[in-house]
Amino acid sequence: MKSGDRIRVATATEELEGRLMPSTRSGYLVLKLDSGYNIGIDESKIKNKELVKAAEPAASKETSVEQKKGLKKIAILHTGGTIASKIDYSTGGVIAQFSAEDMLNLFPELTDIANITSRQIASMQSEMMRFAHHNLIAREVAKEVENGVDGVIVTHGTDTLHYSSAALAFILEGLSVPVLLVGSQRSSDRGSTDAADNLLSAAYFIAESDFAGVGICMHENSDDANNLILPATKSRKMHTSRRDAFRPINTTAIARVNYAEKNISFISEYEKRNKKTITLKLIKEDIKVGIVKVHPNISADQFAFFSGYDGLVLEGTGLGHIPNQKVDDASAENAKIQKAVEKLVADGTVVADSSQCIYGRVHMNVYTPLRELQDIGVVGHLSDMTPETTFIKLAWLLSNYSKDEAKKLLTENLRGEITERTEKETFLV
Amino acid sequence: MKSGDRIRVATATEELEGRLMPSTRSGYLVLKLDSGYNIGIDESKIKNKELVKAAEPAASKETSVEQKKGLKKIAILHTGGTIASKIDYSTGGVIAQFSAEDMLNLFPELTDIANITSRQIASMQSEMMRFAHHNLIAREVAKEVENGVDGVIVTHGTDTLHYSSAALAFILEGLSVPVLLVGSQRSSDRGSTDAADNLLSAAYFIAESDFAGVGICMHENSDDANNLILPATKSRKMHTSRRDAFRPINTTAIARVNYAEKNISFISEYEKRNKKTITLKLIKEDIKVGIVKVHPNISADQFAFFSGYDGLVLEGTGLGHIPNQKVDDASAENAKIQKAVEKLVADGTVVADSSQCIYGRVHMNVYTPLRELQDIGVVGHLSDMTPETTFIKLAWLLSNYSKDEAKKLLTENLRGEITERTEKETFLV
Repeated sequence: MKSGDRIRVATATEELEGRLMPSTRSGYLVLKLDSGYNIGIDESKIKNKELVKAAEPAASKETSVEQKKGLKKIAILHTGGTIASKIDYSTGGVIAQFSAEDMLNLFPELTDIANITSRQIASMQSEMMRFAHHNLIAREVAKEVENGVDGVIVTHGTDTLHYSSAALAFILEGLSVPVLLVGSQRSSDRGSTDAADNLLSAAYFIAESDFAGVGICMHENSDDANNLILPATKSRKMHTSRRDAFRPINTTAIARVNYAEKNISFISEYEKRNKKTITLKLIKEDIKVGIVKVHPNISADQFAFFSGYDGLVLEGTGLGHIPNQKVDDASAENAKIQKAVEKLVADGTVVADSSQCIYGRVHMNVYTPLRELQDIGVVGHLSDMTPETTFIKLAWLLSNYSKDEAKKLLTENLRGEITERTEKETFLV
Repeated sequence: MKSGDRIRVATATEELEGRLMPSTRSGYLVLKLDSGYNIGIDESKIKNKELVKAAEPAASKETSVEQKKGLKKIAILHTGGTIASKIDYSTGGVIAQFSAEDMLNLFPELTDIANITSRQIASMQSEMMRFAHHNLIAREVAKEVENGVDGVIVTHGTDTLHYSSAALAFILEGLSVPVLLVGSQRSSDRGSTDAADNLLSAAYFIAESDFAGVGICMHENSDDANNLILPATKSRKMHTSRRDAFRPINTTAIARVNYAEKNISFISEYEKRNKKTITLKLIKEDIKVGIVKVHPNISADQFAFFSGYDGLVLEGTGLGHIPNQKVDDASAENAKIQKAVEKLVADGTVVADSSQCIYGRVHMNVYTPLRELQDIGVVGHLSDMTPETTFIKLAWLLSNYSKDEAKKLLTENLRGEITERTEKETFLV
């Protein structure tokens, strides 16, 4: 018997039928049940094992790229991550293992939705990614767009997927087609994987909608019913493990896709496809931008460290505060923090203010200490931009514009990263 | 006419009645309407102004501390923050201004709920607070407990209220009564303030329930209907401005309080009042603990900076990852990061791993790079503890225990900061 065969296994207590899966855990046989779940069975406990149906030969590489008339062209660019991983049964851990061809063979239904080309451009968990990789992905996307595809899917680890989506949104200026980042929270060989729905929904959305621009396609809930198309610059991984970990921040999703029912419903306004010429505005790989997460008892030297950096994002508390005032003897260090930030700005580091609350807006005019930060040149008024997008945008601006232009553009909405205030604001309430 | 008088004002377009409020914005008269909202009226546009009812004399200081038989004793300790602030109408900003007496006069209903003593122990926005202030609050709370109060309310700025609540939960060992931190997102002189409901609900909860321990009392929703009693070590400010900004993380609230309907309903299990002796385990004010928020392109020297620190919290991505593997030429820096963390641990810094996802658990056994972090001695397995609580707990442990004990206790649930996994976990799913 070989992997892919349908077999029936009997132990002393139960009889199980399913597809034989590759197992690297010695002494265990792995069966994919019809429920979709994999189960490991101790081989020493197996009383009987019989072949039900031999595996059909896997679709060849050529089949998967056969061009079908009338179908849109989608390029899938693989970068690694859980979506390209499977469980290492010897450790219970996850290892990166699938190639681009494997991925297409895992989800052959993709080729019914569009004419798919599939390439591996990297093989890494997303937490390992650096600006160089954002540029790499952007270049490969641009190549595909210039070759005339109707859309691109980038498979990607989930850890920094929202940093990458923001980076692509800024780097790819004049994007005329959809580019969707797709990850999964369960590796693709698991019965419970969300990879299938995320990929199929992304392909379906690209094939059937008129959306253009960068987005994220992930689960709306823990079940497989709906996927969301999320805004590239206003989303965040908000849970370590749930399938619906990606949430829109301070806005709504762009669209809901129900692949099973072949239904797409738009939730927010969006840019439609049009003829534009793509321009790559890459992030300089040697640009130095940091993030300081502010916390009680933080010291001035934790800010001073960033001397010589091109940019620094303050992840402040509340409306964007940092401890910058001496209010009693025990808070003398705070005054040094104000001085340290003052010196950073004076020495040419662009310092931008954001909030670790994640939700809501930063607002520099409410409290005196924040006005004092603004007075020394910290860029506030970044409204409802997430700290992560502020970081990526700052690095991108400093790579492509002068410092003065960067400071100005930081406060302006360029790629949907800042939304208008919708709450009523009045002087005296 | 003087502040507090009920007056009627007519302009060319409308007639308004309400209580005259202090205004420091020259040329404007401020009226608190019956709706509770304040409105500013340009004095040059006022056609007529008449007294409806003169203000009653404010309750004197003595009245407010009069002991009523049968009522519980609650100490309110004021530390400053928005709850002790009012709007500076000259700038539209907020200034700290109310004294302990002012606060009690603003909310005289408090004295119907309990015998209140009210003291100002600090006057600062909470982002200015350092470990010294956590200790200060803890000492003052302990004094009140030793003096026999039935509970303590600590009014506090919202920015770092959840850091302070965690600090108090750890510092105050053997707490036999409730200690509730209360803030407000709108200053107490605003019609829309949430201070009244937060304070009254906290006092009512202390007077009428048998809860003991540290908690937070803030709004459940944007309206004033319900307040939540939130867990001290598992809550977080999740919005810069909403009244319901404080949310329980990876757990539920402890209780719901509807002050208007005089109703308390418990949501989770809780510790009840019992005879215990309070012990102060303070945080050393010179203990050095940092937080690194991990992000793409982070450099090894941002970790190496913390050489000599007693502790460091990694706010990793996803399950708690940091970029610690060279997977291609562009990610060579990642290997240096692994070395830098390795050196920190070897040199004696206790390094703890958490996740910037905020929700969910860190999990070190799923992916190889995280297992490698663990292998070099990074403390993982911190489960669903928030990064903020991890930071406070680490500083507190290093102040009171040996490094080895600290590493061990970090992974154990001491004050409700770690909850049991409730999802089903199996080997092969």
